[in-house]
Amino acid sequence: MMRGRFITLEGGEGVGKSTQIHAVAAALTAQGIETVATREPGGSKGAEAIRTLLMEGSDDRWDARSEALLFAAARADHVARTIRPALARGAWVLCDRFVDSSRAYQGGGGGLTDADILTLHRVGSEGLLPDRTFLLTVSPAEAVRRLIARGGSDRMGSKPADYQARLGARFIEMAEAEPGRWRIIDADAPTEQVTVAILSGLAEWL
Amino acid sequence: MMRGRFITLEGGEGVGKSTQIHAVAAALTAQGIETVATREPGGSKGAEAIRTLLMEGSDDRWDARSEALLFAAARADHVARTIRPALARGAWVLCDRFVDSSRAYQGGGGGLTDADILTLHRVGSEGLLPDRTFLLTVSPAEAVRRLIARGGSDRMGSKPADYQARLGARFIEMAEAEPGRWRIIDADAPTEQVTVAILSGLAEWL
Repeated sequence: MMRGRFITLEGGEGVGKSTQIHAVAAALTAQGIETVATREPGGSKGAEAIRTLLMEGSDDRWDARSEALLFAAARADHVARTIRPALARGAWVLCDRFVDSSRAYQGGGGGLTDADILTLHRVGSEGLLPDRTFLLTVSPAEAVRRLIARGGSDRMGSKPADYQARLGARFIEMAEAEPGRWRIIDADAPTEQVTVAILSGLAEWL
Repeated sequence: MMRGRFITLEGGEGVGKSTQIHAVAAALTAQGIETVATREPGGSKGAEAIRTLLMEGSDDRWDARSEALLFAAARADHVARTIRPALARGAWVLCDRFVDSSRAYQGGGGGLTDADILTLHRVGSEGLLPDRTFLLTVSPAEAVRRLIARGGSDRMGSKPADYQARLGARFIEMAEAEPGRWRIIDADAPTEQVTVAILSGLAEWL
């Protein structure tokens, strides 16, 4: 059995990752490929329990170090219990956020570096990286419009505009540093057009 | 204000760590020293929530990697919210288990090394180590007698005898590798005698 492909979608809140995961999964399924659509934090029983710890409570419930370790613990469970078994049986895994979100959100504050986050990922998940990562970008005006349309945000998304801008810059930086793995997608475009762009980025394996 | 002393008690289950923590705390308090008696996993609000995740459920609920990350996350919260603030105001902290328990229990199985556990501790807790660590050892016969007297065990303690023997050997190895920090205490002795031995190991600071 050939190992499946591991594909992740990254970007700020409200860029359409979840919508695209399901559209791309449907397109792959229509081609006879078994797909597993999942998300982080969560995606396995243990990881969902850790997600609850991470998402509940006040903004300062966890300091940056504890938070980074909890994300890494959830990811380790998700990788061991959901992602690796799926890839091993030949399924393609589509994941809404993965270690690159930890690098963007946790790897530049509270005394933690990008190298620290990658170290936690090595210990927790044996450093598993996606075969391809799509960075969905939207213009600031479009991001605000979508967030308002969603009627709010969770603990991770409720941060000021300069924070969102820094986050966007960090994602771009990561994508440009590893062009073989990453594709940058303009997600201001209509939904169907974004799905087509993502599928084009998988064409070499289809 | 002089920084307080950070003292940990280590060893297998049923060696009397908790009893000694409270006896030593009482003796220090009687000398006018503010003491904080705490334990791992737990010792702060967030860490207690993680403790619940770790202690509940079946033996295979977490694989070795997720478990090590959860212990490191609980420790990071405990260090940031309880231990460092107490030491900073001059209190002495007496802790029932710390990173050495992770090294003994998680650092030799499931693909994780002692170096991995220390790496997680560096990222999570900036590598904070105790000023002194007491290893309480009991003979195998005494260990069995005490476990039976306690009427059972938790998920971490319910392992076969050869596991307990390996664990004991790992503790001794760590103690012998770092003799400045560790003191090995014969805990087959009567409770009061063990307390005196621990206090002797703190005499240089009293």
